[in-house]
Order: sequence, then structure tokens, then C-alpha cells
Amino acid sequence: MITDHDYSIAAQRILSWADMLAAHTDVTGELTCTYLTPAHRATAQQIAQWMNDCGFDEVRHDAVGNVIGRYKGGAAHGLVATGSHYDTVRNGGRYDGRLGILVPMAVVAAMHARNERLPFDLEVVGFAEEEGVRFGGTFLGSSAYAGQYDPALLALRDGDGVSVSEAMLAAGLDPDVLCASGNAPAEGGPTGLRHYFEIHIEQGPVLLETGRALGVVSAIAGCVRRVLVLEGLAGHAGTVPMALRRDAAAAGAEIVLAVERICRERAGVVGTVGILEVPGGSINVVPGQCRLSLDVRAGKDETRDAALAAIDAEVQAICRRRNIAWTSTELLRAAAVPCSDEGRRLWRKTLQDIGHEPFELSSGAGHDAMLMARVVPVSMLFLRCGNGGISHNPLETVSAADVADTCRATRRFLDVLAADGLAPAR
Amino acid sequence: MITDHDYSIAAQRILSWADMLAAHTDVTGELTCTYLTPAHRATAQQIAQWMNDCGFDEVRHDAVGNVIGRYKGGAAHGLVATGSHYDTVRNGGRYDGRLGILVPMAVVAAMHARNERLPFDLEVVGFAEEEGVRFGGTFLGSSAYAGQYDPALLALRDGDGVSVSEAMLAAGLDPDVLCASGNAPAEGGPTGLRHYFEIHIEQGPVLLETGRALGVVSAIAGCVRRVLVLEGLAGHAGTVPMALRRDAAAAGAEIVLAVERICRERAGVVGTVGILEVPGGSINVVPGQCRLSLDVRAGKDETRDAALAAIDAEVQAICRRRNIAWTSTELLRAAAVPCSDEGRRLWRKTLQDIGHEPFELSSGAGHDAMLMARVVPVSMLFLRCGNGGISHNPLETVSAADVADTCRATRRFLDVLAADGLAPAR
Repeated sequence: MITDHDYSIAAQRILSWADMLAAHTDVTGELTCTYLTPAHRATAQQIAQWMNDCGFDEVRHDAVGNVIGRYKGGAAHGLVATGSHYDTVRNGGRYDGRLGILVPMAVVAAMHARNERLPFDLEVVGFAEEEGVRFGGTFLGSSAYAGQYDPALLALRDGDGVSVSEAMLAAGLDPDVLCASGNAPAEGGPTGLRHYFEIHIEQGPVLLETGRALGVVSAIAGCVRRVLVLEGLAGHAGTVPMALRRDAAAAGAEIVLAVERICRERAGVVGTVGILEVPGGSINVVPGQCRLSLDVRAGKDETRDAALAAIDAEVQAICRRRNIAWTSTELLRAAAVPCSDEGRRLWRKTLQDIGHEPFELSSGAGHDAMLMARVVPVSMLFLRCGNGGISHNPLETVSAADVADTCRATRRFLDVLAADGLAPAR
Repeated sequence: MITDHDYSIAAQRILSWADMLAAHTDVTGELTCTYLTPAHRATAQQIAQWMNDCGFDEVRHDAVGNVIGRYKGGAAHGLVATGSHYDTVRNGGRYDGRLGILVPMAVVAAMHARNERLPFDLEVVGFAEEEGVRFGGTFLGSSAYAGQYDPALLALRDGDGVSVSEAMLAAGLDPDVLCASGNAPAEGGPTGLRHYFEIHIEQGPVLLETGRALGVVSAIAGCVRRVLVLEGLAGHAGTVPMALRRDAAAAGAEIVLAVERICRERAGVVGTVGILEVPGGSINVVPGQCRLSLDVRAGKDETRDAALAAIDAEVQAICRRRNIAWTSTELLRAAAVPCSDEGRRLWRKTLQDIGHEPFELSSGAGHDAMLMARVVPVSMLFLRCGNGGISHNPLETVSAADVADTCRATRRFLDVLAADGLAPAR
């Protein structure tokens, strides 16, 4: 059996791996690893090599650039997959995505060292692309693995005008093979796949602030994004009395605070005005226009939509009272992806088994599990994000103790899943 | 005596003059008349020609480019001056400044036609520069007329690198003469000057909204301008719960509303946040920074400073509560310029004499009278600005009836001033 000491060694190895992967970057002095750049290809090669070292039975690169290690078990129980992405945002952190590959790799290495086998095959997948940085399209890796790759993605172009197809060919990957393989098992992803789980750094402060190392993800939040444009009446800052103004920025300010208040009052909802501006504003002109964005997310679509309805009502009341015209343009409406009830139950049991509270939280960020949920039940485990919960930033960090706990939880989950989760007639 | 019909004719003439002057523009299709451009020189020539037509006894161009018409009266009572600027902002209105030249010109024409003379000399001055558009420096015309011209202004350069001196030489004006003449009567402006009054379109909606044609200016507001930068903590819009955010834009929004509330509660104060932005903001990022401007004005400096102190206290409370760091940089602090008590009294009497309510209001915008106040008691009369009070805009407008009332008031004021205002030992 894997010991506490083994998990501690595994955690050190994972942190060291993350440091080494961070050396492969598109931009010197930061960690930027975008789809199919030389740094990205070197990262894939390095992961594959380590997978071989860990004792995976098969390590392969698929057509989209995913790196997949298979640790064979009892074929009768089918296949379980886990993983996350190895690409990064610009100047990102070294744990976002990558821990979801490296933790299962280290767990497999520990199992292999102790000659432990599972009753099912386990695939650990390093997804080639999730962030959408280079080509705009997101989830290129997991959509291919899930058999959900949209061939239209091949035509997307990066800032230099290079298309996804061209970049694939240059990297030695074949778009035709991708389209064939990507679309073939469209209804079920890899043959025999029973469950997908994903380990991920929380990318937020909830576990940190509540003093917990691990949390079970209840759902990946759905998101609505809008841009609002408010039109008042520009005027001379000195000559228009306060009572006669139609100040678009003051209306915008009320909306910002309404969004904050409404989302704060509702459990599980976050709302953000990330863009706020007075276009062409001058210090001595009463704002005639204000432009602001809205991003509202919740683990349940009903919850999110109720918050949006309350926000809409407030926007209407504010603009009517202030005699401000407004338009709202919806840019995105993505449904929430609940983690499977079964997966959540098994993770809660897992945390209890290893002496942790079975705490649940929703994920406000998107993850590869969203794509995988199209074809298979999914579950997710978050581990605590240090440094105030900062992510998408070089300051992103985790503790070695938390990574060791994550390895212990992952190993335990595999047993719980084997014992309880893959019974054919639940 | 000048009749109602005469005032009506005078008003038509003034509106027609304003239309004709608006044809001289730096930019075809709008009215932009900036210091010493060909359009600006043509405007000056046109005003001078009309002054001659009106019956002024002397018409001259001074060293800075002001156009000055003198209508001689009894020399024993000294000199009274009135005027305003003939330059414009970019794409401005045709009445801003110019009515303050054209109304007294038409009144002099009417007096001349009826052989009416005043017991003092009257100078009507078209100031060459007030808006500061071309060279940044403002009040070039009135500062020269007041003997307050700062020779450092000659070194200012426009967007093409042309200095004020170079532009003057190109326009046939002599900077050396300006410096000599401009500084000579530094303590008193033109010899024997007893009073300066200025007629100006309100540039705001107060008279319009309160149903008045004319108003006496109590003071030209002092102004404080600041830029505030708020620093919170950027975060993922999906993963940072509302309660754990340090959203700089939400703090900025509270400040915008605090400025509005504090200034609205205090009579005679206006406060504007004209610039409001999240630098580099993204739809999916909790704002880590917010930048906003502040412009606070009042007719009395104490009133303005009390509002500023209340705003400062609110900014501090908001930022402390939200754990936001902030800096505030003061860009401008200009003292209010009160109109002389005597001038205000005489204008109130004038309005009563012609059957108008002696309504007073402060000016939120700056005027040439501010410069003149350094050397002589000043007073101002505002006339109603149509179209919701819009100014610095081609939509700026006045009614012929209001212009006729303004002529009547101006003529009456000259008599009131002669009878009551220039007594040597008040």
C-alpha cells in the first residue's frame, strides 16, 4: 500500500515537474504555452517521457496533440479517464491544468512501484488546448478526446494569420486524421469510457479562506456575458446643475453596485463588471455615454437567470429614473454543467475516507470536464489555491502538503470508484 | 430713445452677424476658430468692419489680436469696458463669447443712430483668445487687455510645433509690442478703466429650466480637478466569490455616486466624474484598478472645499471598507472669482427696471471677466441658452426675443451705471 511518505515524495515530484514544465515557454521570463508552439510541443514530449518513466503501459500522442498514458487494469470494468490541459494563458501559473495531469501520473507511478493495478483501465490525458489563447477557440484538446471536435475549428487563425490546420501540419499533426478520429465516436468518446474525473487547482480563494485543502465540485457554472451601453446627455461640468444632469457614468455606477448587491445576496452567484468606461471622457464633461460589461455565473442556470432578471429590473429602474437610454447585447450564454450525482457522492465519500470534510463548491471557471460531460459522467476535485487564490498569474501557488493530500484522495477515489461507482446496474 | 422695435431689429442683426461670423472656420462644415488662423484673422477683420459701421469713434486691433471699438462719451467719468472672446472651441457654437461682443456693438449702433452718448467712454472688446484650444494657454486676449499678459505664453506651441510668437509674426502682430503694452498698465489695465461687464450665453440649462431669459452672475466658480487611481485585486470573474473581492471598479462606482450625492445636497456646487475607466479591463476579470477624474466647482471656494472634504472622507471610508488602496493627484485648483457687489446690485436693479426678476446664478464655466477682475470690478449678465442648455456644440442656440431683452438690459445697465455705479465716493 502506498504510504504517507510515498505521497509526500509524489508531491515533491509533482512540484518539481511543474517547475520543469514551466521552463518551456513562448515568451522568455514568463510562462506562456499556447497551442502548437515549439514550447507547447516540447511540453508534450516531456509529459510523454515522464509518463513512460511512471510505468504507464501505453503512451501516445493523438491527432490533436493530446498526450495520453494508459495504465492497464481489468478490461471487464472498462475505462476511466482523468486529465486536464497543459496549455496556459499568457503569463499564467504553472499549476492551472497541469496538476490534473501530473497528480494522476504520480499516483500511477506510486501504484506501479507497488505493483498495484485497478479493476479498470485508467487513461491520464494531457489535453493540448483548453484556454483559447492562440486561436480563440477553446477546449480543442478535450473536444477531440471526447469525439466532439468541430472541424470548423481548423479554420481559426492566430494573430499571425496561421490557421489551426497549418499549425497542425507544421507540428507534424494531421488534420484529416483528427477529423476522422475526432468525429468517429461522437456519441461516447473513447471506447468503453465509464467516467471522467478532473483534478484542478481551485483558481479562487474559497478553500483557502475556509481553511480546507480539498473540495468536491458540484457543478461548473454557466455563464452569461453582456455589454451594456448607456446613453445620457453630455454637458459642461461647470454649467449643468446636478439636478438637471443625465449622467451616463452615474447610471453605470449604480448598475455596478446593483450587480454586486444582487449577486452577493444570492448564494452561488458571481457577477462582474470587468469593463467600465466613459468613451472619450473628459475631466470637464458630464458623461454622455458609459459602456460596461456584465459576466454572471452560477452553478445552476435557474439561479443565474434569476440574478440576471433582478439585474435587468434594476438596470431598467435606474435608467428610467435617470432618463438614460440603454442597450444590452448578449455575447455568450453557456449552460451550467453539473458534475454527476454519482461522481459527487463518490468524491464526498473519498474525502471522508481520508479524514477530510466532504465540502462541495461550484466552479466559476470552465474546465475540460465540461466537454467530457457531453459523453460521460464527470466529476472534479479542487485543491486549495494559495496566495489569496490568485490564478492565471505567475503568483499562482499550491502547498506540497495539499498536493500530497490530493494524491491520497485521487488514489482513494480510484478504489471507491472501483468498489462502488462502476457497478453496472446502479 | 431706443424703441422695442429697435431692440428687435438689433437682435435680428446680432443673430445674422453670428451666422456670418460662423462662416469663418478652420474646419469646413463646423465652427472652429482658433487663435491666429486665417479664419480667426478674417473674423477679427469682419468684427472691426462692423464696429466701424456701427458708429464707434475709434476701432483698433491691439498687439495680441483683440478688436476694440471705442464709443466716446464724457471723459470725466472715465472708461467702461465690455466684451468677450471671438475664438471658439473645436466644433463649437456661434454664440459662446461672440454675443458678448455683438450685443454691445448693436447697442452702440442703436445709440449712435439716436445720437445717444454716455457720460463715459465705452470700449467693446472682441478678445482674440479665451478657450485655449490651439496653444493650451487660455485668456490670451483678456490678459493682454488687462495688462496681465505673461510673456511665457509666447513660447507655447500648437500641435504643429508653431509657437505663439511665430503665429503672431505670421499674422502681422508683434510680440515685442505685446509684451511692452501688455505689461505696462499691470496694476490697472486700460487707463481710467472703472468697470468691466460681460454678456455671455449661460452655456447651461438653469435659466431655461427656470423659465427666465436673463440672470445676473454672482460669481465665476472656482474649480478643483483631481485624478484618482484605485488599486484593488484583479481576480477571475468566475472563481472569486463576491464576499472575497477587492473590486476597484465597485469602489469607483461608490465614489461616483458619493460625488453626485454630496454635490447635489449642497447648493451651488457641481461635481463631475468625467473620466471613469478600468485600465485594460476584461469582461471576465474582476477589476484590479479603476481610474477616475473629479471636477468640483462652486461660486465660493469655502463651499467647494467643504464639498471636497466630504468627498475625501467618503473616498477614504469606501476604500477602507473595501480594502482598496488609492491615490489622488490634484491637477488644478483655481479660486472662485466673485462679481463685484456693486456690479451685481446694478444688474439686479437693471433687470427690475426692465421688468425682469433680478435672478442671480453662478457661472460654472470660466470667462474673460475672471482675468479682468484682477484689475477692475467686474459684472456679468447671462442670457438663456436654448436646446436644453447645450454649449460647446453646434446645437448651441438663443432666441431672438432673449437677445432683444439682452440688448435692452445692456442699454439700461449703461444708464444705471452712469447714474449710480461710477459715483466717485460710494
